[in-house]
Amino acid sequence: MKKKLLLIFSISILSSKLIFAQNVDSLQISKIFSTALKDDEAYHALYDLCKHAGKRISGSPLADTAVNRMSGWLKKWGADTVWLQECMVPHWVRGEKEQAIIISSVLKMNESVPVCALGMSIGTSADGIKAGVIEVHGMGELKNLNPADIKGKIVFYNGPMPPESIYTFNAYGNTVGQRWGGAMEAAKFGAIGVVIRSVATHIDSHPHTGSMGYNDSIPKIPAVAISTEAAEKLSASLKKDKNLQFWFKSSCQTLPDVKSHNVIAEIKGSKYPNEVIVVGGHLDAWDMAEGAHDDGAGVVHSMEVLRLFKTLGIKPQRTIRVVLFMNEENGTRGAKAYAEWAKTSGEKYIAAIESDAGGFTPRGFSLDCGEAYRDFIQMKFQPVLSHFGIYDFTRGGSGADVGHLKDECPVLSELSPDSQRYFDHHHSELDVFEEVNDRELELGAAAMASFVYLLDKYGNGTDRIKSGEE
Amino acid sequence: MKKKLLLIFSISILSSKLIFAQNVDSLQISKIFSTALKDDEAYHALYDLCKHAGKRISGSPLADTAVNRMSGWLKKWGADTVWLQECMVPHWVRGEKEQAIIISSVLKMNESVPVCALGMSIGTSADGIKAGVIEVHGMGELKNLNPADIKGKIVFYNGPMPPESIYTFNAYGNTVGQRWGGAMEAAKFGAIGVVIRSVATHIDSHPHTGSMGYNDSIPKIPAVAISTEAAEKLSASLKKDKNLQFWFKSSCQTLPDVKSHNVIAEIKGSKYPNEVIVVGGHLDAWDMAEGAHDDGAGVVHSMEVLRLFKTLGIKPQRTIRVVLFMNEENGTRGAKAYAEWAKTSGEKYIAAIESDAGGFTPRGFSLDCGEAYRDFIQMKFQPVLSHFGIYDFTRGGSGADVGHLKDECPVLSELSPDSQRYFDHHHSELDVFEEVNDRELELGAAAMASFVYLLDKYGNGTDRIKSGEE
Repeated sequence: MKKKLLLIFSISILSSKLIFAQNVDSLQISKIFSTALKDDEAYHALYDLCKHAGKRISGSPLADTAVNRMSGWLKKWGADTVWLQECMVPHWVRGEKEQAIIISSVLKMNESVPVCALGMSIGTSADGIKAGVIEVHGMGELKNLNPADIKGKIVFYNGPMPPESIYTFNAYGNTVGQRWGGAMEAAKFGAIGVVIRSVATHIDSHPHTGSMGYNDSIPKIPAVAISTEAAEKLSASLKKDKNLQFWFKSSCQTLPDVKSHNVIAEIKGSKYPNEVIVVGGHLDAWDMAEGAHDDGAGVVHSMEVLRLFKTLGIKPQRTIRVVLFMNEENGTRGAKAYAEWAKTSGEKYIAAIESDAGGFTPRGFSLDCGEAYRDFIQMKFQPVLSHFGIYDFTRGGSGADVGHLKDECPVLSELSPDSQRYFDHHHSELDVFEEVNDRELELGAAAMASFVYLLDKYGNGTDRIKSGEE
Repeated sequence: MKKKLLLIFSISILSSKLIFAQNVDSLQISKIFSTALKDDEAYHALYDLCKHAGKRISGSPLADTAVNRMSGWLKKWGADTVWLQECMVPHWVRGEKEQAIIISSVLKMNESVPVCALGMSIGTSADGIKAGVIEVHGMGELKNLNPADIKGKIVFYNGPMPPESIYTFNAYGNTVGQRWGGAMEAAKFGAIGVVIRSVATHIDSHPHTGSMGYNDSIPKIPAVAISTEAAEKLSASLKKDKNLQFWFKSSCQTLPDVKSHNVIAEIKGSKYPNEVIVVGGHLDAWDMAEGAHDDGAGVVHSMEVLRLFKTLGIKPQRTIRVVLFMNEENGTRGAKAYAEWAKTSGEKYIAAIESDAGGFTPRGFSLDCGEAYRDFIQMKFQPVLSHFGIYDFTRGGSGADVGHLKDECPVLSELSPDSQRYFDHHHSELDVFEEVNDRELELGAAAMASFVYLLDKYGNGTDRIKSGEE
């Protein structure tokens, strides 16, 4: 009986401690959210990035502008240090606006359709390329065709994003393979070019670019993305005239690598300055529009963590480091440079959190960490954060940039915003500032700052008991 | 020991039964979501409603068009019955476009600003009204002023929606009082008109209308909403010239009540036809734009429940009834007519679920029911629905229409979509079809259908054990 009473007593002390800690945390997080929503600073910084450094593809002058402007904001917001970390980046240029025409004498058709070169593609000759078209819905289908039917042709990959995926990144993951590998696979069979259905959720007239790969052992052939609407038209036309011709012209090329920079800013930890929590997004963006959701949102989310801490006078125990990575889109050279440096810096990494899924209402964080720590987060952080709409810590994985810190860092994570609209804009001319809602953006920043606040306070589980924080 | 083993055995049987039931439910709900996302039918119906019956304010010919078109879709989708339920509705008409001017000789100002009459307001005289302005930030402030300063003036209510509310409906609730009661309160002190800052989340040039009240014992004075941008300008101008004049003119009026209709359609229950689950939204909309989010979304969400059940061959045990309520915006006369009829129909109500918070990504359902049943939903429905992003069953309350069924129905509920963008569009010319994302809309419909599926299968707790469904 005595034991039982003692147990009940201990449990009730523990619960009140837990509830008290949760209340304190909840109050601080409430201030973080209020300040983000009232100040509108992340939104103003995003405006600056989008309108003054819109088409900031790696190696471009606008990428340098982005580096300069964002380091300016970080200085203005009172970062303890701001510095630029050098990295060499690819320098791919699109050249003149791409053109494409569907040609069919049977259908009395000579119709221009919207296309754009895939990032890192070679261009066509000055006259463009013209050939018959083989339509497939994924790379696997090529093997089932007669190689003679593919040779000298343009392969048209028309696999759509499956609409039934509720989390649209899953649909993207299931479809993007043909964009990345489609040219290599088609070239193996002797195709002379590829046309890829834009990886997008809507049927409209906007082509969506994105990265593609080559392999030095396979001939390099040019690749363009076609708008989803034009993909439907091309497919319908092929059903009526399988011998129609497709012509396209692009003048993109890859120039020698150039020097570029990550932007790094931090608040030095008050108790464990050598322990680091990284928050980051990527500074570069495709050259189609303004990179507002991809990844202007992630850039200002990460910067706003620093500003919110400074504004609210939160003095972190650990060092909070904002890293704005260069070159996520076509090489992750910035992330690689940072990860190389991290191996030698003698610091201890607590967690690295990326934001690269848009400026939409935040829902949770993906986690790449041990199961025990995921359980700890579910038990300790989720009850507090769920009051602010941040409830989902079930997804695995992290982001393309912080993923390079896998060897150094036991907790990798990525902000999970609502995914429904992301692939309407992604990598197309629709990804502009006006498509970002101020409140949704600011909630994402507050979610990042709140998660960092808890990680800083409670550690990452590797030394919680040792350091007496619990 | 034997007892303990038996207990463990029973628990494990119970858990496997629970897990099996959850798997079956999860599979069915997965089909509901896939079908909603693939078919796009709710989106097409919303297009029809918005583009052919946009300004469908109660009593207008477009409200009749909405009744006819939406009952047409319900018939086409195979409802067992579709009928129109008569109700008398107010007939308020806006008249000519409203005008307003800030006039200050001190500031050399004679500037037109965007205003619109509040719904149910009286109009001004043909010359409009012109007077000095008293700015307040809520009705309480009037009591602290010298009544002589208010007499003969225009009262300008400039209380903004607090940006720090994460759930924007809370901010709305804290602000909308001055819109509803502001004219009555100001008239008590002898004011001759009121100008209300639009209840909206953005600073822009669009005035937002909405319902207001009068009291026969207090003089009726005209009321207009001013855009948030113009409200800021008026406030700034008053700081420089407190004697500036404001002129506005409106020609709105209330005509005699007219006959209108709720649209009612149902699938008859296979096992308990006399037990009813209601799903509904409101057919009427303010006359500013197309009523896409408010409440076209709720209308098609509710209709889509029926379509999804029919398409997937789900034969509900209980009767599923879609009620498209007329006149939510300025009287809820349709809801009152339905509730009156419900009292006499001899049916048993299981639940009534409204959708009137926009076509944004769904997050959960508010519940107005007993605590035990809320716990049951948290325990039984939430684990299944959370896989589809529907996790929040913590809010209280329901909607303005199903609220009238309080006496008949033990479970009232409202769909809770993401609230961040709702008050950007609400009651303004921005509430158009193009502002609704197809996937977000369809997820809302699927959430409604899934919740109804579970309510139909498991009942509302009043007779679960009796009927042996568990």
